[in-house]
Amino acid sequence: MDLRINRKSPVPLYLQISGAIQGLILAGRLPDGFLLPPERRLADSLGVNRTTVVNAYQQLKADGFVAAHVGRGTSVLGPRPEERGAGPVQPLPWLQLARDGAAREPDPLVRDLLALTERKDVISLAVGLPAPELLPIEALGRIHRRLLAERGAEIFLHSPTEGVTAFREAVCRHMVSRGIQCGASEVLITSGSQQALDLVARTYLAPGDAVAVEEPSYFGALATFRVAQARLLGVPCDGDGMRTDLLENLLARQRPRLIYTLPTFQNPSGSVLSLERRRRLLELAYRYQVPVLEDDPYSDLRYGGDAVPSLKALDRNGYVIYLSSFSKILFPGLRLGWIAAPRQAVRQLALTKQLVDLHSSTLGQWMVERFISEGLFSRHLEAVRAEYARRRDAMVEALQSEAPEGFTWSRPEGGFYVWCSFPERVSQSALLQKAAEEHVAFLPGNASFVGEPERNHLRLNFTYCAPDQIREGVSRLVRAYRAAAAGPRSHERPAGGTPPIV
Amino acid sequence: MDLRINRKSPVPLYLQISGAIQGLILAGRLPDGFLLPPERRLADSLGVNRTTVVNAYQQLKADGFVAAHVGRGTSVLGPRPEERGAGPVQPLPWLQLARDGAAREPDPLVRDLLALTERKDVISLAVGLPAPELLPIEALGRIHRRLLAERGAEIFLHSPTEGVTAFREAVCRHMVSRGIQCGASEVLITSGSQQALDLVARTYLAPGDAVAVEEPSYFGALATFRVAQARLLGVPCDGDGMRTDLLENLLARQRPRLIYTLPTFQNPSGSVLSLERRRRLLELAYRYQVPVLEDDPYSDLRYGGDAVPSLKALDRNGYVIYLSSFSKILFPGLRLGWIAAPRQAVRQLALTKQLVDLHSSTLGQWMVERFISEGLFSRHLEAVRAEYARRRDAMVEALQSEAPEGFTWSRPEGGFYVWCSFPERVSQSALLQKAAEEHVAFLPGNASFVGEPERNHLRLNFTYCAPDQIREGVSRLVRAYRAAAAGPRSHERPAGGTPPIV
Repeated sequence: MDLRINRKSPVPLYLQISGAIQGLILAGRLPDGFLLPPERRLADSLGVNRTTVVNAYQQLKADGFVAAHVGRGTSVLGPRPEERGAGPVQPLPWLQLARDGAAREPDPLVRDLLALTERKDVISLAVGLPAPELLPIEALGRIHRRLLAERGAEIFLHSPTEGVTAFREAVCRHMVSRGIQCGASEVLITSGSQQALDLVARTYLAPGDAVAVEEPSYFGALATFRVAQARLLGVPCDGDGMRTDLLENLLARQRPRLIYTLPTFQNPSGSVLSLERRRRLLELAYRYQVPVLEDDPYSDLRYGGDAVPSLKALDRNGYVIYLSSFSKILFPGLRLGWIAAPRQAVRQLALTKQLVDLHSSTLGQWMVERFISEGLFSRHLEAVRAEYARRRDAMVEALQSEAPEGFTWSRPEGGFYVWCSFPERVSQSALLQKAAEEHVAFLPGNASFVGEPERNHLRLNFTYCAPDQIREGVSRLVRAYRAAAAGPRSHERPAGGTPPIV
Repeated sequence: MDLRINRKSPVPLYLQISGAIQGLILAGRLPDGFLLPPERRLADSLGVNRTTVVNAYQQLKADGFVAAHVGRGTSVLGPRPEERGAGPVQPLPWLQLARDGAAREPDPLVRDLLALTERKDVISLAVGLPAPELLPIEALGRIHRRLLAERGAEIFLHSPTEGVTAFREAVCRHMVSRGIQCGASEVLITSGSQQALDLVARTYLAPGDAVAVEEPSYFGALATFRVAQARLLGVPCDGDGMRTDLLENLLARQRPRLIYTLPTFQNPSGSVLSLERRRRLLELAYRYQVPVLEDDPYSDLRYGGDAVPSLKALDRNGYVIYLSSFSKILFPGLRLGWIAAPRQAVRQLALTKQLVDLHSSTLGQWMVERFISEGLFSRHLEAVRAEYARRRDAMVEALQSEAPEGFTWSRPEGGFYVWCSFPERVSQSALLQKAAEEHVAFLPGNASFVGEPERNHLRLNFTYCAPDQIREGVSRLVRAYRAAAAGPRSHERPAGGTPPIV
């Protein structure tokens, strides 16, 4: 009988013991009639007084879990008749209890992939993470000490739902470097930009509402909109981002409630929406009175070419809800992002956030505030920009020298990802399988589309691994690709159309 | 013309300048025809090369925001005809864009109250906070240094949605002291217990589903269920907690999807559900196959009497989802709570959390893990228990010696709150008004009820303020009460019934 007790607990020891035994009985690990150890023996083995065990057994008896018989010891009783009710208790069917539309288990493909990226012998080009070895953690000890000395308990107490004021102001100063001018009252701090997406979906989308999204788009956002039971309307993209000519058609016919776009170094395609299309997109939003959700985690990470103003910077009429994050440049584990939006929208989103988690971590907000205010953030940005440019080049060069015919890739001007395409005749799942054998992981492209894409795609990250690893990863991927291309076409659509399911 | 530029930004200076001017134009702060400063003058005032300003103005011209005329300088242009579309752009009606059921502005009463508690000259008995001066922050510097040395960047990186494994294990060890035995895989770390409530509501409640709640109950949970568009079914309480005899009737007739209860030192009433009723509640849940949501933030804070096992400890059939939090004892600003539930429920709730914020702050989890593992948490618990007992006594004694006739109060055995009742003839809003004049704040009771209570109530917190402040606060409250009782009965229900609204 394995019992755990805690001497520092306020719960009296005898109640801990009776509770633990009761737990074993309830879990079915001590069957009906099971003889409990004699009081003295249990007392010795637990290092407690005999009286404590006597009291515990008396409690169990009073609660109807055991029977004590002089000379025969204390034995476990089955459930009392009145507890059985009309019959045996049915276990709850937890899986079926989830409401319609609740989040579901991911695609087995994605699950296998996630399992793969956790293996140490796998080169992961699948993630969306900054280089961990470049994180400026040496400054953190000093910052933490100084915050404790200057602010004391404050950094561990509640803070406003909208965010710590000094941090909101620092975020505004940082946005100036992106060409965005706004005040602290137009900023809402979020627990990462995943929460920002969720807050917007919960506040503005009712089941059945339509959302216009790029194809491809960020799969995490698509999942959030799906759980909000929104209808996703895909707008095709080309090298200049979302095809605004096609967006217009869709706005006129389907009246979406929201246009979701990642205009700069898009996830997954890496493309940049051209300035002309940005203007056009805003004009269309104004004409059809549709708010624009601009997701911009990557625009600080430009490795060449000229910056293009964000939609938020171009918007003259308060139509844009702008999202960004510190997770792609600083510390993803702190879960800090932000929304910049018209004041009324910030107020409404803050009401939603209040019910979701009250506010984001006060400590984390103060730490990143110090990073921005002390100039450490921009210094770090310069360092990672230089290194990530090298890593992008390493990946693109490796692809240039190794990629087989039919396999194409982008050369992004910034961000995190190279976007690759390959013919439909090569099976995605076969490629994943072969890649696993070669110990390399990538993100399959299909999860980024609303419908089924015409070609196959995959997303390769170049920021997380060092250049040598990237080159080795590309070699492994190319080997896996050749093997998959040589194999049977397991997932090809039948030439004669869809077979009826009978 | 007030321009901000950032020399460390990757955005070229000329684009920053053109962007800032464009922002001013778009915001309507530089009207049509406004003459921009000569290039050299602006260059001097910003401390940049003249070429930079020349380039900025050329960009603005190319973008159609200004016109340059030789000898006349550069002047602002109005919107281009094609940007005007069919007419002037309509501002978005952000308030109306929120979906039905989105979080709404709080009751003006609550809003006034919140504004009041922020004033330094007000004694706040309204909050639900631990004593900030008792927080064990002196250990935090050391813990942070050690974590940095031992774990490096890991504490700032992503961690599993379910929580850092070591932290989940520490939470399990802590639960043993509450008589609960479960494994790490049955625990989900949440961003505070507000998030836990929200995750449960989002996962298990569809609009129109019924939830059985105590009356009174925690107003934050009621707000969460309301935003999930659930129907709230109130179950009356007495000194022994929820009236399980009335619960049965409700289960049989209304088939709620969830029973929500705070059985131990309830918020707001401070009551404890008796052991007999705990057993009865579980029997009913089993019979009607309804999951039980047990919210237990306060049970570690017992100041006298015997501990009663939690529903989770008594549950033999996996029907209980158990919530708790570190915010009432350790650091509310870290936003850390947890769910302990059957594995299938934890899995489903983690899928929801994945879309909500990916995971809770990695740093915060490691810090609290160290607090538990180094025994600092139980030591702190002992210290606050002793002090909070004194504060409860100070409040109860002050009420005993000062409270006027008709004003009654509880003496809780633990937790945070004294629950007071007073006759309906004294207007709640008049009392709030008078309390504001006396510089004391409390939580009005009505927000804690589903319907309208028969008597008036208010909740007083005794953990946040020092004993002297508590005594002074009670004196002020009593003065406010006498003044309100002497005034006109502004909110009394008319004796003849409800007047028709015409």
